[in-house]
Amino acid sequence: MDNIIYLDNSATTKPCDKAIEYMNTCLKENWGNPSSLHSLGMNAENTVTSARECVAKSIFANLNEIIFTSGGTEANNTAVMSALFRKNRGNRVITTAIEHHSVLECFKKLENNGFEVIYLKPNREGVISLEELENSLNPNTVLVSMMMVNNEVGSIQPIEQAVKLTKSKAPNAFFHCDAVQGYGKLPINVKKLGVDMLTASGHKVHAPKGIGFLYLNSKTHIPPFIVGGGQEKGMRSGTESVPLIASLQGAVEDFPNLETALKTTRSLFFYAKKRLGELPQVTFNSGDNGLPYVLNISVNGYRSETLLHFLEMKEIYVSSGSACSKGNTSYVLKEMGVSPKSIDSALRLSFSKHTQERHIDVLCEALKEATEKLRKA
Amino acid sequence: MDNIIYLDNSATTKPCDKAIEYMNTCLKENWGNPSSLHSLGMNAENTVTSARECVAKSIFANLNEIIFTSGGTEANNTAVMSALFRKNRGNRVITTAIEHHSVLECFKKLENNGFEVIYLKPNREGVISLEELENSLNPNTVLVSMMMVNNEVGSIQPIEQAVKLTKSKAPNAFFHCDAVQGYGKLPINVKKLGVDMLTASGHKVHAPKGIGFLYLNSKTHIPPFIVGGGQEKGMRSGTESVPLIASLQGAVEDFPNLETALKTTRSLFFYAKKRLGELPQVTFNSGDNGLPYVLNISVNGYRSETLLHFLEMKEIYVSSGSACSKGNTSYVLKEMGVSPKSIDSALRLSFSKHTQERHIDVLCEALKEATEKLRKA
Repeated sequence: MDNIIYLDNSATTKPCDKAIEYMNTCLKENWGNPSSLHSLGMNAENTVTSARECVAKSIFANLNEIIFTSGGTEANNTAVMSALFRKNRGNRVITTAIEHHSVLECFKKLENNGFEVIYLKPNREGVISLEELENSLNPNTVLVSMMMVNNEVGSIQPIEQAVKLTKSKAPNAFFHCDAVQGYGKLPINVKKLGVDMLTASGHKVHAPKGIGFLYLNSKTHIPPFIVGGGQEKGMRSGTESVPLIASLQGAVEDFPNLETALKTTRSLFFYAKKRLGELPQVTFNSGDNGLPYVLNISVNGYRSETLLHFLEMKEIYVSSGSACSKGNTSYVLKEMGVSPKSIDSALRLSFSKHTQERHIDVLCEALKEATEKLRKA
Repeated sequence: MDNIIYLDNSATTKPCDKAIEYMNTCLKENWGNPSSLHSLGMNAENTVTSARECVAKSIFANLNEIIFTSGGTEANNTAVMSALFRKNRGNRVITTAIEHHSVLECFKKLENNGFEVIYLKPNREGVISLEELENSLNPNTVLVSMMMVNNEVGSIQPIEQAVKLTKSKAPNAFFHCDAVQGYGKLPINVKKLGVDMLTASGHKVHAPKGIGFLYLNSKTHIPPFIVGGGQEKGMRSGTESVPLIASLQGAVEDFPNLETALKTTRSLFFYAKKRLGELPQVTFNSGDNGLPYVLNISVNGYRSETLLHFLEMKEIYVSSGSACSKGNTSYVLKEMGVSPKSIDSALRLSFSKHTQERHIDVLCEALKEATEKLRKA
């Protein structure tokens, strides 16, 4: 496993040692139920509180503004479906055409419930226009949901400005940001952004799968999505997964300095662009101003899946799109206006703090070999 | 930790070695995203399938009838809230007054959505009358949700007969059974029971917190509760928590022979009744025909919490009710007709396969000391 070249970090990441260590402590020693009144319960509750403090700090939120969930998808469902309960205030909801499925599917449900849904279109680099948002906002709008970083191409949305526009044109609207691909890579200050709700996921930042959180501004009131025993101050029932919550803390404590890592990764991104650009078949679907952890390319003339499996034989792991769409044609690239042929040849390379230039070199060699050996589509 | 006497297994259990081992393999080696098309993804997907087979087998279900969830609460929400989408077939839903909060709170939501909710009352032993169920069923009924084993007193409901009645009197109704406290203790055959849906939780059976499943009969069609990337055949979106799913398999593989364990625990239950009965202050709230893993007693004249903390000083851990109600007065005992004074003195002792007679002896000594040393309430 140590020799593999893993360039699919937007799909999932390898859990870090600290995440694993914290988790095991909760499995072997600190395994009480946080709701139990005795000390085993108290110890577990303290672990949850400590993790909550750590996570809150990582986005400049308050302790009471973090709701642990089973992952990004549940957090997105909680945030978006809350619009159902504010229908008396307005009927319009706004999102983008390039959100993750866990947001888009919720908007479909809202549409089935009589909401008017506006899907904002991206430009050629995958960025949403603020002007288009402005034109879509009206006082009837109760929710805007916009992702921070697109999972397929890495484009960064102008969240802070979008929030400002929303708050001025649609005072009834809550602003939700799916930051699953941004958290742990871009520095995030929820107070500066002004968002009401923000989603993050653990397994994209070297924690295990099954944990995430929703930031919910203390002044933003939404109903719980999962009801029951009243855990998470009534906002998310179900016995807290203390081991996963602790492991998220481990992963967050292990974050590098995000600014420094961003700079390093930006160099890596441009190194990759330079090296990959030497292959005449390669075109770039990611713009230069996105999150440098994601580089979406097309190796024109070759099918994504064929390339993916060719690379896999050499223990190089990439994605043909988002992991969640499992081989379906990319709606994100389509919305961006990428040609159908280039979409069929798209590969997503996604980096982590462990990715190095030598990994890119091996990838380029392998892709060169692929273009020589594989039959054209 | 090894010297503690843990009698709060209905709140949560200590993860077993196999659960921890399987989990760590997924954290350290097999950490791919099951939706990824490359072999790291395939390996993770195979792990999920293997766990699904194991879990399905444990209740005589088919492979495609198990939906992994983040726990019992999410599974209960998925099952009960599905009634919302069948309102066109009828308006009545039936449950019991002594369900877990994660079921009761869903029924409150259904009530707010215009459903007529019938809460069946238990008898003095915490058992629901089939006659009362029969009188409540009508062709307008779309859901019956009845727990297998009550979490506070261990009473066992007549699920098989209740399903038969439901299917004959209310052909439009789905039958859901919250089996969180029964799974891994009572042998369960979902086909014999005839239920449409059944909920179980990992952390009650020596898997970690954060994993559970919903059995959904292949002929029973309900909408997904959490939507997004379409995992679990579209029935539960969100990247699968492979480590937790694998750990559940570890726990299930570690199940003892349930019949034998039941017999052993029944002896333990009656031993405990005999020994505790020697204390004149003790009365029993659990009947003799319930699940022997749960014994609810009242130490009359002493407050539950005072006793709980006294015992805790001696590293004996019990509960004053269900962990989820965190110190609130028990609605279960109230519905059963236990006197308010006895409710205030109630303790729930809940056993596991690790509980032994010598633990009961120590508990009895400690309770005797408590009644001598503590001031009466």
